[in-house]
Amino acid sequence: MKTIGILNGPNLDRLGKREPEVYGSETLADLEERLKAKATDLDYEIAFFQSNHEGELIDKLAEWVDSGVSAVVLNGAGLTHTSVALRDAIAASDLPVVEVHISHIYQREPFRHTSLTAPVCKGVISGLGFYGYEAAMEFLAKR
Amino acid sequence: MKTIGILNGPNLDRLGKREPEVYGSETLADLEERLKAKATDLDYEIAFFQSNHEGELIDKLAEWVDSGVSAVVLNGAGLTHTSVALRDAIAASDLPVVEVHISHIYQREPFRHTSLTAPVCKGVISGLGFYGYEAAMEFLAKR
Amino acid sequence: MKTIGILNGPNLDRLGKREPEVYGSETLADLEERLKAKATDLDYEIAFFQSNHEGELIDKLAEWVDSGVSAVVLNGAGLTHTSVALRDAIAASDLPVVEVHISHIYQREPFRHTSLTAPVCKGVISGLGFYGYEAAMEFLAKR
Amino acid sequence: MKTIGILNGPNLDRLGKREPEVYGSETLADLEERLKAKATDLDYEIAFFQSNHEGELIDKLAEWVDSGVSAVVLNGAGLTHTSVALRDAIAASDLPVVEVHISHIYQREPFRHTSLTAPVCKGVISGLGFYGYEAAMEFLAKR
Amino acid sequence: MKTIGILNGPNLDRLGKREPEVYGSETLADLEERLKAKATDLDYEIAFFQSNHEGELIDKLAEWVDSGVSAVVLNGAGLTHTSVALRDAIAASDLPVVEVHISHIYQREPFRHTSLTAPVCKGVISGLGFYGYEAAMEFLAKR
Amino acid sequence: MKTIGILNGPNLDRLGKREPEVYGSETLADLEERLKAKATDLDYEIAFFQSNHEGELIDKLAEWVDSGVSAVVLNGAGLTHTSVALRDAIAASDLPVVEVHISHIYQREPFRHTSLTAPVCKGVISGLGFYGYEAAMEFLAKR
Amino acid sequence: MKTIGILNGPNLDRLGKREPEVYGSETLADLEERLKAKATDLDYEIAFFQSNHEGELIDKLAEWVDSGVSAVVLNGAGLTHTSVALRDAIAASDLPVVEVHISHIYQREPFRHTSLTAPVCKGVISGLGFYGYEAAMEFLAKR
Amino acid sequence: MKTIGILNGPNLDRLGKREPEVYGSETLADLEERLKAKATDLDYEIAFFQSNHEGELIDKLAEWVDSGVSAVVLNGAGLTHTSVALRDAIAASDLPVVEVHISHIYQREPFRHTSLTAPVCKGVISGLGFYGYEAAMEFLAKR
Amino acid sequence: MKTIGILNGPNLDRLGKREPEVYGSETLADLEERLKAKATDLDYEIAFFQSNHEGELIDKLAEWVDSGVSAVVLNGAGLTHTSVALRDAIAASDLPVVEVHISHIYQREPFRHTSLTAPVCKGVISGLGFYGYEAAMEFLAKR
Amino acid sequence: MKTIGILNGPNLDRLGKREPEVYGSETLADLEERLKAKATDLDYEIAFFQSNHEGELIDKLAEWVDSGVSAVVLNGAGLTHTSVALRDAIAASDLPVVEVHISHIYQREPFRHTSLTAPVCKGVISGLGFYGYEAAMEFLAKR
Amino acid sequence: MKTIGILNGPNLDRLGKREPEVYGSETLADLEERLKAKATDLDYEIAFFQSNHEGELIDKLAEWVDSGVSAVVLNGAGLTHTSVALRDAIAASDLPVVEVHISHIYQREPFRHTSLTAPVCKGVISGLGFYGYEAAMEFLAKR
Amino acid sequence: MKTIGILNGPNLDRLGKREPEVYGSETLADLEERLKAKATDLDYEIAFFQSNHEGELIDKLAEWVDSGVSAVVLNGAGLTHTSVALRDAIAASDLPVVEVHISHIYQREPFRHTSLTAPVCKGVISGLGFYGYEAAMEFLAKR
Repeated sequence: MKTIGILNGPNLDRLGKREPEVYGSETLADLEERLKAKATDLDYEIAFFQSNHEGELIDKLAEWVDSGVSAVVLNGAGLTHTSVALRDAIAASDLPVVEVHISHIYQREPFRHTSLTAPVCKGVISGLGFYGYEAAMEFLAKR
Repeated sequence: MKTIGILNGPNLDRLGKREPEVYGSETLADLEERLKAKATDLDYEIAFFQSNHEGELIDKLAEWVDSGVSAVVLNGAGLTHTSVALRDAIAASDLPVVEVHISHIYQREPFRHTSLTAPVCKGVISGLGFYGYEAAMEFLAKR
Repeated sequence: MKTIGILNGPNLDRLGKREPEVYGSETLADLEERLKAKATDLDYEIAFFQSNHEGELIDKLAEWVDSGVSAVVLNGAGLTHTSVALRDAIAASDLPVVEVHISHIYQREPFRHTSLTAPVCKGVISGLGFYGYEAAMEFLAKR
Repeated sequence: MKTIGILNGPNLDRLGKREPEVYGSETLADLEERLKAKATDLDYEIAFFQSNHEGELIDKLAEWVDSGVSAVVLNGAGLTHTSVALRDAIAASDLPVVEVHISHIYQREPFRHTSLTAPVCKGVISGLGFYGYEAAMEFLAKR
Repeated sequence: MKTIGILNGPNLDRLGKREPEVYGSETLADLEERLKAKATDLDYEIAFFQSNHEGELIDKLAEWVDSGVSAVVLNGAGLTHTSVALRDAIAASDLPVVEVHISHIYQREPFRHTSLTAPVCKGVISGLGFYGYEAAMEFLAKR
Repeated sequence: MKTIGILNGPNLDRLGKREPEVYGSETLADLEERLKAKATDLDYEIAFFQSNHEGELIDKLAEWVDSGVSAVVLNGAGLTHTSVALRDAIAASDLPVVEVHISHIYQREPFRHTSLTAPVCKGVISGLGFYGYEAAMEFLAKR
Repeated sequence: MKTIGILNGPNLDRLGKREPEVYGSETLADLEERLKAKATDLDYEIAFFQSNHEGELIDKLAEWVDSGVSAVVLNGAGLTHTSVALRDAIAASDLPVVEVHISHIYQREPFRHTSLTAPVCKGVISGLGFYGYEAAMEFLAKR
Repeated sequence: MKTIGILNGPNLDRLGKREPEVYGSETLADLEERLKAKATDLDYEIAFFQSNHEGELIDKLAEWVDSGVSAVVLNGAGLTHTSVALRDAIAASDLPVVEVHISHIYQREPFRHTSLTAPVCKGVISGLGFYGYEAAMEFLAKR
Repeated sequence: MKTIGILNGPNLDRLGKREPEVYGSETLADLEERLKAKATDLDYEIAFFQSNHEGELIDKLAEWVDSGVSAVVLNGAGLTHTSVALRDAIAASDLPVVEVHISHIYQREPFRHTSLTAPVCKGVISGLGFYGYEAAMEFLAKR
Repeated sequence: MKTIGILNGPNLDRLGKREPEVYGSETLADLEERLKAKATDLDYEIAFFQSNHEGELIDKLAEWVDSGVSAVVLNGAGLTHTSVALRDAIAASDLPVVEVHISHIYQREPFRHTSLTAPVCKGVISGLGFYGYEAAMEFLAKR
Repeated sequence: MKTIGILNGPNLDRLGKREPEVYGSETLADLEERLKAKATDLDYEIAFFQSNHEGELIDKLAEWVDSGVSAVVLNGAGLTHTSVALRDAIAASDLPVVEVHISHIYQREPFRHTSLTAPVCKGVISGLGFYGYEAAMEFLAKR
Repeated sequence: MKTIGILNGPNLDRLGKREPEVYGSETLADLEERLKAKATDLDYEIAFFQSNHEGELIDKLAEWVDSGVSAVVLNGAGLTHTSVALRDAIAASDLPVVEVHISHIYQREPFRHTSLTAPVCKGVISGLGFYGYEAAMEFLAKR
């Protein structure tokens, strides 16, 4: 069975506790459960990982390349706008990656309107909440 | 039955004929057919419209507001980056709109990295091909 | 009797329906009626036109030049900030034009703080609501 | 009887002597007389003040707040583009203020195209000569 | 016999009436006549079209592609500097296009110094008056 | 006994009357009283001055230099962001100066995020209300 | 007893060894001792943490939220200017945070004049040395 | 006998006391004496004025116009870079003005490299110390 | 017989040897021969000059002014984008000059999209290969 | 025997696997071996370290300072362009550091053309492949 | 006897012939004669040189250093704004240099408002015509 | 035997005499001698050339291409940052070129941080003094 990696960046462990008017009241565990169900529908497994450490996200991506993960859904959170290192890790991975943002980054501060990682991803989904992860998975599974 | 409007901007009538390495070889008619099928799955109807005229897109959006369309999927194409008038029409419509781009705008010219219309939409999907329209419809139908 | 042309750009047909907190609750028809009364006071007639199409606005301006309209009040709406073509049409018309904005553009998004059309107009009135049209007419009639 | 304050900034005491091709040949005294007549028509009085000193303009505005002036017409002249202190004074006054420029600032040097004071005013009138003051008074009296 | 399309954008219908110190006193009809004569010399026909509507220009370009026009001379006028949609239409057409400006755009306002359409054309001619169209035709015919 | 000068710029005379949601409801007299008490604790005296005039602030600073004031707490208000002359006066004074802002300037308009005076001060305190003045005094007294 | 968290970013473990002309000769241990004394005066405890790892700082902040720390003094050091993730963590914490810099950031390189974290803090203190931490603690304890 | 006005802006009263490594150790009185001697050589008188108040400098310039001063040497100091009002006063005066800076503004902070007043002066002299005033006087007397 | 000067800037002596995919495989000698033929058709002579030295190009232009050359075709090559001195030489010459680029500068690096020399020329031709020189000659001969 | 530290940043553990057209096909182990040989030639030892974690790189640098490493060759990879914290660590270390990039950063994306770390290093070598490390070592050993 | 070098850049050999409304009708020979007379007054000699070649100006400056010229008056003309090489030559010469511009560069195109050479000169004189050279000589002779 | 060309730009003839704190006290002759020795080690010859003339550097590069030089070490000095013509010459040469700077350009003025020539070179070495030339030669000889 093929695996899609779900990679979540800084502060997403605070989902549900953090600014619910921006991110909703569901938690990261709720998200994981929901995506597992989606994966079953698609005949896939998921590997689910969150870290507040840029380095751990890069390590994980490399580990997934080596263990044969077939595609990645990435929510880089705040690193989206600042991390050349994460961008390089995506490019180095040669995996198809779709970038997802729960909130709509175009309706927030100007520094969130640019993405360093987007140009090395297959696509971007912004503002569709948790559904954005599901759509990304479906796209990656069916391409 | 509820209706989702699918609004396509300039040059999308040339899909399939135009730069297939960027936009793929399927035509606008193929897209319409595919989205009709998707709508049926979602228990919706679609209204499908394309124009090369900014004014006609704005007129159509107002017409849809008056006729009770419940949500809109918008591919503003080149107008995405230049039309304040289209942005104003979306804001004026008070409809939930999801912006879709077939190609991945972040991998193209810099002037395509900014969107005047995105901040007044619910979300943006870029780079997922025709599937982007389907995901937008599903999001709008289920929210 | 002399005629002042009143030229209204995209989405102004939605006045009263569109974002009333920004534009008020009166409609375009209300505006036309009010300006007709003002014109009578000034011993003038008005020609009143609205379109969502940049091209139709340019066509109308040229038509007014040929039919002897003596001055123009222009609310270019979203085209104010993006249309070199409309600017060229104003310059080509050689008519005195006053630019009017119902809402106060300096209190809105930064892209509304610049105007491509203002430098080829006689003056600009921003933020005075419908009264701005009346003041523009009075200025043009009495100069 | 209600009072509208007319506040004129630096160098407007030189009206008529200064660059007549930009500002016309009438003097500040001519303007005061004309606005007194306008005030009578509107059943208002005016308080008329000019200074070349930023500080005196700010002091005067505070004085007017305390003495119950009901609205202000402001021609900040050169301070329009550079004075955060004047902007703060307007915001602090809580009075309705309309900004007026005799010449058309959009047809002059680029540094005159931005206004620090406009965002805290109700509206702006530019390029309509002395009539701009009258229109501002009428708007403030009738709102 | 092969056909070269001559596509003229907004306000060029006002040639001869509009700012003659910038554009000269000859009319669009004079231009058409002159280019017909040039075409005959080159053993070509011309299709000649002008519109103030961005959408009609895009429609016409697509129509010309379908009807086998072999090359295009484009004077996009004010749209040159603002229309991504027209740029996309040129790229989509796969036709050789030469961009022409009657006046010398480098001697006018700074916003006329950049061209959105030039990078998808074969070349640009600026400032040579009506002769610019002839030179473009000769280049396209002989290449 | 040593003296610390407290220098307050434009509109701070309106404290308590002006935008209480930004600046609180206490007045300048309340501030002076509070700082006098603080000075007593520190075995210092204060010289307390406010003006809406840039020139008077500069004159006062020079006067304090000549009369032996040992340090200055400066709230330049709107002049913070625009006055090279005030900056030069601080540099010329050779006094240790700490810049204080009652509100948090980083949470307000972008033009308040830069300070012309800060680089010639010893430090900056922003957002701590009246307490900011006290902390500045304590720092200056104990260094 | 209430606790204030003291969070120190990259390289602050090198205090005393690192560039003493910029940061002084006291060490991080000296700072901790001094702040413990200050806390005792304020009837508070402190939690004191330093890390060179952005992720550990974010983890610690979340941990403090969960353990009931009541306020935070943050010296983000180099991360101040580059870390959206740290900013998000502060916003997510809902704790009152005061940003402190030992050296005066406005007298150093231009990239140190902007702060990504300041807009989500209550205030900023720059240039007052170790005393800045004490003032921040006092402000947080007494508000 | 003809008169040349010597107008000195903010902080120049501190010459000799202020940053002698930048401005030298001679005082404003020394300068006045030296320029009186130079005026005698040129068969001129001087009017000598210094103020820290922008408004007084503008008032003085207007007064000099009315009293028949024939030319002005201006050292606007910090106002050089920020005062549109002073620029307008120079333009309004119609007097020949030469701008002088004692220190070399191109070797100081970047914000001193631009001058708002220079474009309305006849010329600029920077970096030649007190001699710059003498050269300006000689140029104005002999032109 | 009248003479048109053909002035070629740096590296054009390498035509045919240099990047043939950009500049074609014909040499400078081929160009000279072709333009001589064109000149004969137009009843003109040509003066043909190439140099890698900015100073020699400026000297030559001055020499041509003195010897009565009637017009100039200029390919400034890399100097187009960097030489104020060459621009000044063109303006000083008072000759009609047409700027020509063999390759299409709008399809190359951004620094090639601006031209310091174009604003002082009559027109610009870019991207039409050697034919661009011929068209420039014809325009200059027939104007 | 003296030691040179070789510090490699994010993703360099993927050398050989990652984008071989940019970085070549040799691995990090190959590099280490090659540099050990070079060190032997220079009568030096190397300490070799790679991490994807900014914090670990900073920790290591501090550790090397304490253990007496005499110089450092740094390939900061993606952190080069974004990490003020790494820059501060270099400055704090007081060690001579040479920055090395395997690929030529000036031929890649614009955000790779600036370096936050270079100004605090002794020099930079870009584009010379693995040889760049050897040259850096030789320079540091022989200075 | 001491010597002052007078160094004139590109196109100044065209003085009198070139744009007399900008540069006046006197020639370079007139200037040389006038400066010789001035030198005699100052008990100096002059070395006078003009070239259109950046390299020759740099060569001459080095030659003058070697032959003991004591100071230089430089009119770099168009090179002022573009030549780092000329700037480096001035800095390398260690000679006192005063930069002179005959016309007033602040009243011309924006690219003439910046000077690459000014920061390495002692001062700048702009807009005083030929007199500017004399004043520069007097300053250099008497310092 | 193969030859490496060593090309030195403006002012490098002043090495040793010019700003020794930036460039060291060794002369250009010292450099040539040192590089000859290095060439012998590498079994190469060198061609060594310096000029203050951009045109002569371009001429020399073309001459070296024709005479079979196999690679070039370039120190473009001040031209590095301003010369498109030199960049074009490098690109036209098709030779492998390594750019060298004796001083560390990232520690100097901001305009020295960008290089027009670097993107068409194989690599860049900055700040390693004369050793930088040797390393460039070794790289070019062994690749």
